Amino acid sequence: MKIAITGACGFIGEALARRLLAEGGLGQGFPALERLTLVDAAPPLAVIGERVRWLRGDFGEAAIQHELFGDGVDLVFHLAAMPGGAAEADAAAGWRVNLAAPMSLFEAFAQSPHGTKRVVFASSVAVFGAGVPPHVDDETYPAPTLSYGAQKLMVETWLADVSRRGVLDARSVRLPGIVARPETASGHISAFLSNIFHKLARRESFVAPMGPAATTWLLSRETCVDNLLIAARAPQDRLPGRRAWTMPALRLSMQELVEALAAALGPQVLGLVAFTPDARIEAQFGRQPPLATAVAEGLGMRHDGDAAGLVVNVLRSLREIHKGDPS
Amino acid sequence: MKIAITGACGFIGEALARRLLAEGGLGQGFPALERLTLVDAAPPLAVIGERVRWLRGDFGEAAIQHELFGDGVDLVFHLAAMPGGAAEADAAAGWRVNLAAPMSLFEAFAQSPHGTKRVVFASSVAVFGAGVPPHVDDETYPAPTLSYGAQKLMVETWLADVSRRGVLDARSVRLPGIVARPETASGHISAFLSNIFHKLARRESFVAPMGPAATTWLLSRETCVDNLLIAARAPQDRLPGRRAWTMPALRLSMQELVEALAAALGPQVLGLVAFTPDARIEAQFGRQPPLATAVAEGLGMRHDGDAAGLVVNVLRSLREIHKGDPS
Repeated sequence: MKIAITGACGFIGEALARRLLAEGGLGQGFPALERLTLVDAAPPLAVIGERVRWLRGDFGEAAIQHELFGDGVDLVFHLAAMPGGAAEADAAAGWRVNLAAPMSLFEAFAQSPHGTKRVVFASSVAVFGAGVPPHVDDETYPAPTLSYGAQKLMVETWLADVSRRGVLDARSVRLPGIVARPETASGHISAFLSNIFHKLARRESFVAPMGPAATTWLLSRETCVDNLLIAARAPQDRLPGRRAWTMPALRLSMQELVEALAAALGPQVLGLVAFTPDARIEAQFGRQPPLATAVAEGLGMRHDGDAAGLVVNVLRSLREIHKGDPS
Repeated sequence: MKIAITGACGFIGEALARRLLAEGGLGQGFPALERLTLVDAAPPLAVIGERVRWLRGDFGEAAIQHELFGDGVDLVFHLAAMPGGAAEADAAAGWRVNLAAPMSLFEAFAQSPHGTKRVVFASSVAVFGAGVPPHVDDETYPAPTLSYGAQKLMVETWLADVSRRGVLDARSVRLPGIVARPETASGHISAFLSNIFHKLARRESFVAPMGPAATTWLLSRETCVDNLLIAARAPQDRLPGRRAWTMPALRLSMQELVEALAAALGPQVLGLVAFTPDARIEAQFGRQPPLATAVAEGLGMRHDGDAAGLVVNVLRSLREIHKGDPS
């Protein structure tokens, strides 16, 4: 099986690439991994192997697409995106990277001569916007309030139509906040939800831009990768016509998150956290209501179980990253 | 006020142009019509006057857009589209005409130097697709099942975002079946809903591709024009954040429509109608459930009242068209 990942240098892309290599593909009766093409504009990571091909460049460019699809691809995980904050700051770039370029990538995939042409598209709960109703499920009408969410929703709509036509076989999965991203300036407005893990793990003080009662949807990286693999394996006849659904997530208040971190790291971290709510950030990320994810659960997707499980999974992942540091 | 209409040679465009000219603009305190630019790829119609400028060409082309917006436009009614059947038959053309070209038109409008930059976008109930729930209202999550509906939904999503940013001031109104379109090959799969008026008005036999119990949403052309003008006049603070809502429509069964035609045209037309249901057409157009249009009604939009009112409005419009015929 020939698999490709765009955004392969990203937080989720790298973990997905390592998992596919470690497991030799999708497993569960799918053909073995024959080649893994890793596409990113950034320099290749140390994810290497006989079956690995790195393609450095812009996934929206025809030359890269030609190289990528030239002799066939069966499955593309499209993870590359300009994050919400960056897409908001540079509207033209956001529309190019998050709408025009994915459509051109998928068009090239559709027109390529070989392969089963399955797409797993990393959509986002940003499709729901800031004005979410008191309960969100797979039938909630999205109303994005950031361009990023509008872009994800438009790509979902387009992928559903090309899937209906049988040109591609797409699955759009809406990711919640995935933690803990690296502490770099990622362009994610929600970066603080990752930074709280890093800071408290080092016993440094942390200023939360949301109050203790603010609720948000969270998932660990490894559980997200589990779920992306499930999306890739799902048979077409189990998918909703809309081809889009929300990935399971834990709904936690900032207070619950801090308490779970204290349970894992020691009670002294409780004194390290100050809450200084920012109304704009709370509006986008801090009023997330109960979330029902029936489609995802029917396919076998899950979240991290509870706050303690999330913290364990995230801290384990941090330790593995730090273990790999040359320092 | 400088107003433009794309698709000005179309069934709705021509009626809207005539109304704006007759009434000297939007009325109700809006500045008087200063110029009406009528854009269409087809040859100009006999809609003429000092304030009228015809622009013949493709609204997606930069040269036409430059000519259109060069010295400012306040309000664009974007009616031009490739209809559902045609967009289904030629997917590439459909995506170009119904997604890429409108986005480029609105981009050019946004970047033009003058004007209040209001857009009334003729969206469609095709956004809801064939699998509509048992009740449709402004909170129903669209799930298009034709590319045409997907295209309309994507443009709605994009216009909501540029309106949120304040770059344009858009209003997307989802039109139901507007009757009675001319009997030409329009590319509308729903053309039969217009042809029944033409055929029975001439006492010719008519084969309905839906059964008597099939229900569909209908509106007369003049009532549609009333509603488009209301959309153009509505103050921004009365609009939903999504900037999209459904135009009121009468929900009639084929039987009710035929009976109303018989009441207006004479009982002999009952014997002219045969029902030979086509499952695919019934799926797209014949299972339309009760429709609630609270946003539209709050703004003052309405439908034709009842089946008799619809038939009266449509037949009056047919007589006016025939009166203008040289024959």
